[in-house]
Amino acid sequence: MELRTISAMAKRVNEIIIFVFVALFSKAIGAKPYWRTRWPIDRVSTECLTWQLAVEANNVRGWRIVPAHCLSHIEAYMTGGQYEQDVDYIVEQIESYVSEIVVGEDGMDAWILDIDDTCLSNVIYYKKKKYGCEPYDPMAFKAWAMKGECPAIPGVLGLFSKLVKNGFKVFLITGRDEETLAPSTIANLHDQGFIGYERLTFRSPAYKGKSAVVYKSEIRKQIMEEGYRIWGNVGDQWTDLQGDCLGNRTFKLPNLMYCVP
Amino acid sequence: MELRTISAMAKRVNEIIIFVFVALFSKAIGAKPYWRTRWPIDRVSTECLTWQLAVEANNVRGWRIVPAHCLSHIEAYMTGGQYEQDVDYIVEQIESYVSEIVVGEDGMDAWILDIDDTCLSNVIYYKKKKYGCEPYDPMAFKAWAMKGECPAIPGVLGLFSKLVKNGFKVFLITGRDEETLAPSTIANLHDQGFIGYERLTFRSPAYKGKSAVVYKSEIRKQIMEEGYRIWGNVGDQWTDLQGDCLGNRTFKLPNLMYCVP
Repeated sequence: MELRTISAMAKRVNEIIIFVFVALFSKAIGAKPYWRTRWPIDRVSTECLTWQLAVEANNVRGWRIVPAHCLSHIEAYMTGGQYEQDVDYIVEQIESYVSEIVVGEDGMDAWILDIDDTCLSNVIYYKKKKYGCEPYDPMAFKAWAMKGECPAIPGVLGLFSKLVKNGFKVFLITGRDEETLAPSTIANLHDQGFIGYERLTFRSPAYKGKSAVVYKSEIRKQIMEEGYRIWGNVGDQWTDLQGDCLGNRTFKLPNLMYCVP
Repeated sequence: MELRTISAMAKRVNEIIIFVFVALFSKAIGAKPYWRTRWPIDRVSTECLTWQLAVEANNVRGWRIVPAHCLSHIEAYMTGGQYEQDVDYIVEQIESYVSEIVVGEDGMDAWILDIDDTCLSNVIYYKKKKYGCEPYDPMAFKAWAMKGECPAIPGVLGLFSKLVKNGFKVFLITGRDEETLAPSTIANLHDQGFIGYERLTFRSPAYKGKSAVVYKSEIRKQIMEEGYRIWGNVGDQWTDLQGDCLGNRTFKLPNLMYCVP
């Protein structure tokens, strides 16, 4: 028998032992495998799953409100663990991609992150708005954002820290209004641990009324014209990930609560 | 009471009557609402749903094989009605977009469709390959395609017919090899009712070894250089929908069975 075969067998046996141990341990503490317990699957509506898949694949665009009959589906999705699991899995994909990039010594390797529901979560706010089943309420959202109490999305905070540590220049580009929301947003990011980014761009008066695609494309273009190499671009909206100067790869985080046109 | 209010109430009462009738009728024939019965939801794995969402949102790229533990999830998805429901919903979105286009009289309004798992289904073949849990088998796939027995995907056949009827020039662009698969594919499309397309482009020897994005971009570029306006582009692979000359809108049909790099 070849050495390679014996080594492969040993590895397999090792895997089986770990598997059995984890299975017994799960049994002992009464836990089911996490992917069975997290999302209350009996509250999944296949009709809403169709809508969800179409939204996430960018087949439905410019939608204004979550279908009313999908409230319990989205509530279960957002609060039952599936949303976090989905975010964490995408962050894993991003980190796997990041690990293949050789960061140069010139300090020009850049990464783009959106803020709302990418770095910072608005789920607490949207819970009061029936997870998007109620129409968008700009005044109420502004009041919420001005409090500066959005929690970090843990997976993205971890990614952010790794990017900064690995030498990437992180550019935060947000559609939040500069005049009214800059101070609270800066404080909120700091409080939540988003420390060490290169630049934070708000929507200035010059970009008011422009679509997110136009606004964000122009900001990314400026960054590239400064000589930065944009390796990645992460957002919860397809409008974060369309237009010009997108970067080498884009990643779409889930968001079923609202759509930025 | 205003007339408008009375009218709204009457409409609501009408809706309730219809709802109760449908509910009673469903009970009488022993059927649950279709979105509950179609996909056996107890066979959904939330872990595989995470993978599915990441694939459909283009966050996982260049994957080679379906995760082995997702076999029963994907089997349930493909055979339990959810796949068809998802395709039909996307076709609804496409038809809603199409209905807003004013087709010109110059005959230059174009639409791009992919073939495999867009116009024609390979589910019968992939069933034997554990829905993609077995590695890609180019010889076996070629033998299947040469039989010319792929059934039409009903929703897409309906869309195709509407596009042709409404005056669009439909261009089919496929990665299938011209030298070996042209005759069986042409016959297969004809037998399944795909009649009246403008052009059918196979991968000719000149494009062998090129990626799908490069090959399909070049073909679309040629179509645009002829003066056609590409209004829409529909495929089951993200590589159908990336690159140059994409068209005014793209639509991603579901495919969890394989990934064309």
